[in-house]
Amino acid sequence: MAETPARHGTVVLERYESRALAGNPAGDPNVRTVPVYLPPSYDLEPRRRFPVAYLLAGFTGRGRALLNDAPWSEPIDQRMDRLVASGCGEMILVMPDCFTRFGGSQYLDSTATGRYEEHLIGELIPFVDGKYRTLGTREARGIAGKSSGGYGALVQAMKHPDRFAAVACHSGDMCFDYCYRGDVPKFCSTVQRAGGVAAWLEAFEARPQKKPDDLAALNLLAMAAAYSPNPAAEPFGVDLPCDLSTGAFRDEVWRRWLDHDPLTMIESRAGALRTLKLVYLDCGTQDEWNLHLGARMFAARLRELGVAHQHLEFDDGHMNVAYRYDVSLPKLAAALGAAA
Amino acid sequence: MAETPARHGTVVLERYESRALAGNPAGDPNVRTVPVYLPPSYDLEPRRRFPVAYLLAGFTGRGRALLNDAPWSEPIDQRMDRLVASGCGEMILVMPDCFTRFGGSQYLDSTATGRYEEHLIGELIPFVDGKYRTLGTREARGIAGKSSGGYGALVQAMKHPDRFAAVACHSGDMCFDYCYRGDVPKFCSTVQRAGGVAAWLEAFEARPQKKPDDLAALNLLAMAAAYSPNPAAEPFGVDLPCDLSTGAFRDEVWRRWLDHDPLTMIESRAGALRTLKLVYLDCGTQDEWNLHLGARMFAARLRELGVAHQHLEFDDGHMNVAYRYDVSLPKLAAALGAAA
Amino acid sequence: MAETPARHGTVVLERYESRALAGNPAGDPNVRTVPVYLPPSYDLEPRRRFPVAYLLAGFTGRGRALLNDAPWSEPIDQRMDRLVASGCGEMILVMPDCFTRFGGSQYLDSTATGRYEEHLIGELIPFVDGKYRTLGTREARGIAGKSSGGYGALVQAMKHPDRFAAVACHSGDMCFDYCYRGDVPKFCSTVQRAGGVAAWLEAFEARPQKKPDDLAALNLLAMAAAYSPNPAAEPFGVDLPCDLSTGAFRDEVWRRWLDHDPLTMIESRAGALRTLKLVYLDCGTQDEWNLHLGARMFAARLRELGVAHQHLEFDDGHMNVAYRYDVSLPKLAAALGAAA
Amino acid sequence: MAETPARHGTVVLERYESRALAGNPAGDPNVRTVPVYLPPSYDLEPRRRFPVAYLLAGFTGRGRALLNDAPWSEPIDQRMDRLVASGCGEMILVMPDCFTRFGGSQYLDSTATGRYEEHLIGELIPFVDGKYRTLGTREARGIAGKSSGGYGALVQAMKHPDRFAAVACHSGDMCFDYCYRGDVPKFCSTVQRAGGVAAWLEAFEARPQKKPDDLAALNLLAMAAAYSPNPAAEPFGVDLPCDLSTGAFRDEVWRRWLDHDPLTMIESRAGALRTLKLVYLDCGTQDEWNLHLGARMFAARLRELGVAHQHLEFDDGHMNVAYRYDVSLPKLAAALGAAA
Repeated sequence: MAETPARHGTVVLERYESRALAGNPAGDPNVRTVPVYLPPSYDLEPRRRFPVAYLLAGFTGRGRALLNDAPWSEPIDQRMDRLVASGCGEMILVMPDCFTRFGGSQYLDSTATGRYEEHLIGELIPFVDGKYRTLGTREARGIAGKSSGGYGALVQAMKHPDRFAAVACHSGDMCFDYCYRGDVPKFCSTVQRAGGVAAWLEAFEARPQKKPDDLAALNLLAMAAAYSPNPAAEPFGVDLPCDLSTGAFRDEVWRRWLDHDPLTMIESRAGALRTLKLVYLDCGTQDEWNLHLGARMFAARLRELGVAHQHLEFDDGHMNVAYRYDVSLPKLAAALGAAA
Repeated sequence: MAETPARHGTVVLERYESRALAGNPAGDPNVRTVPVYLPPSYDLEPRRRFPVAYLLAGFTGRGRALLNDAPWSEPIDQRMDRLVASGCGEMILVMPDCFTRFGGSQYLDSTATGRYEEHLIGELIPFVDGKYRTLGTREARGIAGKSSGGYGALVQAMKHPDRFAAVACHSGDMCFDYCYRGDVPKFCSTVQRAGGVAAWLEAFEARPQKKPDDLAALNLLAMAAAYSPNPAAEPFGVDLPCDLSTGAFRDEVWRRWLDHDPLTMIESRAGALRTLKLVYLDCGTQDEWNLHLGARMFAARLRELGVAHQHLEFDDGHMNVAYRYDVSLPKLAAALGAAA
Repeated sequence: MAETPARHGTVVLERYESRALAGNPAGDPNVRTVPVYLPPSYDLEPRRRFPVAYLLAGFTGRGRALLNDAPWSEPIDQRMDRLVASGCGEMILVMPDCFTRFGGSQYLDSTATGRYEEHLIGELIPFVDGKYRTLGTREARGIAGKSSGGYGALVQAMKHPDRFAAVACHSGDMCFDYCYRGDVPKFCSTVQRAGGVAAWLEAFEARPQKKPDDLAALNLLAMAAAYSPNPAAEPFGVDLPCDLSTGAFRDEVWRRWLDHDPLTMIESRAGALRTLKLVYLDCGTQDEWNLHLGARMFAARLRELGVAHQHLEFDDGHMNVAYRYDVSLPKLAAALGAAA
Repeated sequence: MAETPARHGTVVLERYESRALAGNPAGDPNVRTVPVYLPPSYDLEPRRRFPVAYLLAGFTGRGRALLNDAPWSEPIDQRMDRLVASGCGEMILVMPDCFTRFGGSQYLDSTATGRYEEHLIGELIPFVDGKYRTLGTREARGIAGKSSGGYGALVQAMKHPDRFAAVACHSGDMCFDYCYRGDVPKFCSTVQRAGGVAAWLEAFEARPQKKPDDLAALNLLAMAAAYSPNPAAEPFGVDLPCDLSTGAFRDEVWRRWLDHDPLTMIESRAGALRTLKLVYLDCGTQDEWNLHLGARMFAARLRELGVAHQHLEFDDGHMNVAYRYDVSLPKLAAALGAAA
C-alpha cells in the first residue's frame, strides 16, 4: 500500500438544489450531492486559482461513488493526493450526480429523464466557478470519465468546446452497434417475461438482489431514455429499440440512438475537437462491451480528420479500471496548465 | 430409465462417396458416413415401404453424433424405438454428415465450403430411395433438425417443396440480427488478437481444448463461409461481416447474410410453405442465441401469410434439448402417413 | 427510492492512533479512520446518552466501506436514519477498521497481524465512551457484523460478555469444515503455481485487477494469519493449512483453526451467551460458503444449551445482503434499550 | 483433421448378460453393451493373439461413450487406428459398462449398487479371453481410464495384480479430502432443499435438463453408494457423509470413504504395485477437483515406496482430455508386449 502523502486535499460534499432537474419526468430528486475535491495547496495558498476537471461516474454511479472505500483501490481524493505528490499539477475535481431511476442519464437532456446536460453545463459550471477559486476559463477546464462517464465526457467536450479545453475518456460508450445492439434481444426477452417494461422495472426495484440480466436490461432502458425519448410513448416516455409485442428490432428508433453515438457525432464535431488541447481515450482490449473496437474506430477517424489525440490500450476488461486515472489525470492537469 | 422396447430398429452406417463434395474448397473429405435408421418392422415386413425423414445435426455435429451414448438421454435410434413402441408411426431416419472444417455448412451450397445442399438433395435422397424401401414420394419425405440443423431443415423445405412434405425445426437459426450479429464484435476481437483469420483457425485447430470464445468465433466464420462466400476473398474465400483492420461492421456483407435468414426467405417462399403438410417449429424461451424471438417472428409471419403451422415454446435454453424430438417425430410420422 | 427522512444523523470520521497496532507485524498502519454515526437526536438533545453498537465490516472491508455510495443500497447512515424514522431506537454506531495486508484480521489478536481484538475492545470502547455520549454500560453496548464481521461480532460477544449485551451475526463464518476447508486445495494450487506464498502475495498486490481465485487464496492466507499464527514460520509468521511442497493437508494446523470456530467455541462459552439479551443470527440459504449450514448447527447447539436466540434464514446468497441490517438493527436497538 | 489410416480396426458391440449384476439393488439392467475394439491385424492374421487393455469410462459414462462422435476429437477406435499407424503396438480394447442409477459404480462391489468389480474381473475378463484371441495372460493385460475410470483402473490394478500387469490412470479420483470433501456441504444443501435424497433423485431423474449443482450432488451420492453402503440405511442402502437433519459432517462415514482412497490403499498395496510393468498417472494442473494434487501425493508416495512409475502433468483442466490417451496407450501397449 502506498505511503499516505504528507499533503492532502479536502473533499467538500456540496448539496446542490438544481432548477434544471426540478420536477424532472422520472421523479428523481433535484437536490444532489456533488463532491468537490480541493487540492492540497487550496487552503495553503488562499489567493491561488486552479484548473478544474469534471469527473463523470459510469452507469449506475454518481460522483459520491468515486470516493468509495475499497481494498487495493484508492478513492479519487487519495489517488489525486498521491498523483500530486508525484508531480501532477493541482486541480479542483468536481463529481456530478446525474443518476436517474433508470441507472443514469448519459449526461444528456432528455424529455424522459430530465435536463442533465443543462444541469452539468448550465448550472454546475457557473456554481463551481462562483464558489471556488477556479481559474474560470475554458482553457483551464477539463472533463473526464469512465464508461458512461467517458461517453459523457467525450460528448460534452464535443458539444461544448467553449467550456472545455481537454477531455479524457476511459472505456467510453461508442460504436453503439457493438456495445448496445447485441443486448437488445436480451432486453426484449427479459422485459417480455416480466409482462412489460413498467412491470419489469417495478419488480427490479423491489428485488433486494439485482441480477446481471436485470442490469443489462436496465442499461438498455436507460439508453432508450437518453437517446430515444418520446413524450407520447407509454410508459416512461421512451421509445424502445424493439417492439415488445412482436420482438422486432426497430430500425427507426435505432437510428435515433446512432445520432448520439460518438462515431456519428464526430462527423459534425471535428472542428470542436480540433480546438481541444487534449483528446485522450483509452480502453481495455478485453472490454466486455467491445468498447476497444469503438475506441479504435473513433481514434482512426480522429486521425483521418487531423485531430490530435492520444489513444491507449491496456490488457484488461471493462470493470475496476479506476487505476487508469493515474494515466489520464496528470495529462489532463498538464493540458489545463496546472502547476505542480 | 425407460424400459427397452421389445422391438427395435437397426442402424446402418452408410459410407457414401459424394461426387458433389469431391475436391471441395475447404479440403474436407468427400466420403461421409451416413447413419440410416430402419424401423422395427423393416426387416419383419420385407415388402413394406416406409416414409423417410432426414435429421440434420446442429453446428459442429454430424449424423453420427445423433447416435452418441449419453447418460439420461437416448441415442436417436433408441428414442425412435421407444416412440414407435408408444404408437408413433414407423419411419426411416437418415442422418447426413455436412460437417466442414469451419464446423458446419448450414446445409447450403457455397463456393467456400462445397455443395452440401446438392449433396443432401441431389445425392442422398436418390441414394436412399434407391437402396432402401422408402415410399419414395415427396408426400412421404420429411426433414427435421435442431439449431443449425433446424435452420437446414426449414430452409431446405422452403427451397425444395417438391422433395419434402413436412418439416420440424427445433431452435433453428433465424432472425440473424438477434442470433449472430451480437457476436460479430467478439469474433472481430478474437481473430484480430490471433493475427488474422488464418492464424486464428490454425491455432484453434492445434489447441486440444476448444474454448467458448473460440467456438463463438468459429460459428461466425462458418456462417460467413455459408452466407457470404467470395472466391476472390483471402483467406478461405469468405467475406467477413467486419473489416478486420478497422473493426468496422460491413453492412454490404451483412445484407448477403440476411438473404439467407428464414425471416427474409419466408417472403418469397410462402407458396412453398403452404404446400407442406406439417410446418412445426419450437424453441426454448431461454435460448442463449435469442432464437425464441426469431421463432415467434417467423410464426407470426406464417400466420399473416396464412400458412398452417405449429409453434411451441418450452422452458429451457438452447443446449441438450434432444428430448424435443419426442414431440416432433410423432407429428412428422403422422404428417408423412407413417403407420404405427 | 425511499424518501429522505427529515431528521438525520451525523457521521464523524475519527482518526484514531492505535497503540495496540503500533509496529504491528504485517506492517499495516496503526492510524485508522473509524466512522462514528451519531443519531438524529444526538445534537438536538445535548444531555441525552445513547446505546452504542459496533458494526464490523466483512473480509477485505473496513468501517468506511459501510458508508459507500451504491445504487439501490443505502450507506449505513442513511439506512439508520430511515430505520429511526420508522421507529427504531436511536443508537450510536461505531465502524472499526481492522483491515490488514492479508485482507482482514477476523478481529482477533494474532502474532502474524497484530492486536486487533485489543484494539477493538481495549482501545475503541473506552475511546468512544470517553468522547461520545454513550450510556457507557455493558447493558447498552452491542456488536454486529456480516461475514467475517459477523464472525467477529459473535466471537467478541462470546469472549467479552462483560462488554456486550447483544449481538447480531449476519452470514458469519462458522463451521470451518464447510466454509474454508474446501478452498484449501485451491489455495495450495494457486500459491504453488506462483512459487510460494510470498511470491504470490507480492504478485497479487501488484496486479491492478484482483481475480476471484486470488481473493479465495487471500482469504485462506488471512485465516491462517488469524487462526494459526506462528512467529517461527516463514514467511509472514503463519502456519498454512497445507504443506506447500507436498500439497498435503495439515491436520495439526487445522485443529488450531477449529479452536476459533464458533461451533467449537460455543462449548465453553454457553455461559457467556446466556447473559446476552439478544443473540441474533441469520444467513441466506444459498450462501456460497455454506454458512447457512453452520448457522443451523450453531442455532441447534444454542437450543440444546438453552441459550435464547433468534435464527432466521432468507432466500439469497452471501453477497450484497446489507438489507438484512433492516432486520437486525431494530432488534439490537430494542435489546440495548434504545428509545425511539 | 488427421488423414484416416489405411488400416483400421473393428468394433464389436458385445451384449453381455451379467450374472453378477442380476437383481442388483439399484435396479439397473444386468444386460450390458460392451464395445470391443479389435486392432487392424486381428482379421488379417487369424492366428495371432493380442494383448488386451480394459478402458474404463468416467463418472456418468460407460464404454459406448468412448465411441461417441465429436468434432476435433476422435472416437477411441479411430484414435487407436491412428496410433497403430504411427507405430503403437496392436491391442484389443474392452470398454465395460458399469454405469448405475447414481451415475456410476466406481468399478467396486457395493451392497448399494451391485457387484461391478466382480462383473469386471470375474466375468468380463474370462469372457473376453474366451471369445477373442487375447494372449490371455496377466502379462498381456492392462487397465486404463480417466477420472472415475482412472480411479477404477488404479484400484483394480492394486487389488488384482494377478490379472493386470500395467495401469494408466488419467485424472483419477484420489485424495478424497481434496476432490470430494468440499462438495459435501453443497450436496447437503441441495438434497435438504429437495426434501431428502429420494425426493431429490426422483426430481433429478425427471428433469430433462441436468444442472451442474445436480451433477455435483449425484456425484456424492454415487460415491456414498460405492464407499459407504449400508444395507440398513434408508433410502438406497447408503450412509451419507453428512447428517441431512443437522447438516453435520459424519466423520465415521468419511473414514469409510478414505479406506477406498488410493492414497490410503497404497499403504497396503505397494507390493502389488511393484509387480506392475507400468504404473502411469497424469493429471492437468488446473484440475477442477484438485486431482493434480492427489496425483502428486500418490506419485511422491510411490517414490518413497520404491515403486517405479511415470507421473506426468499437463496444462489443462479435468474435462475433455481424451487426447491424453495418445500418451498412455502406446506406453500401455509397449508394457504389455504388443507388437506394432
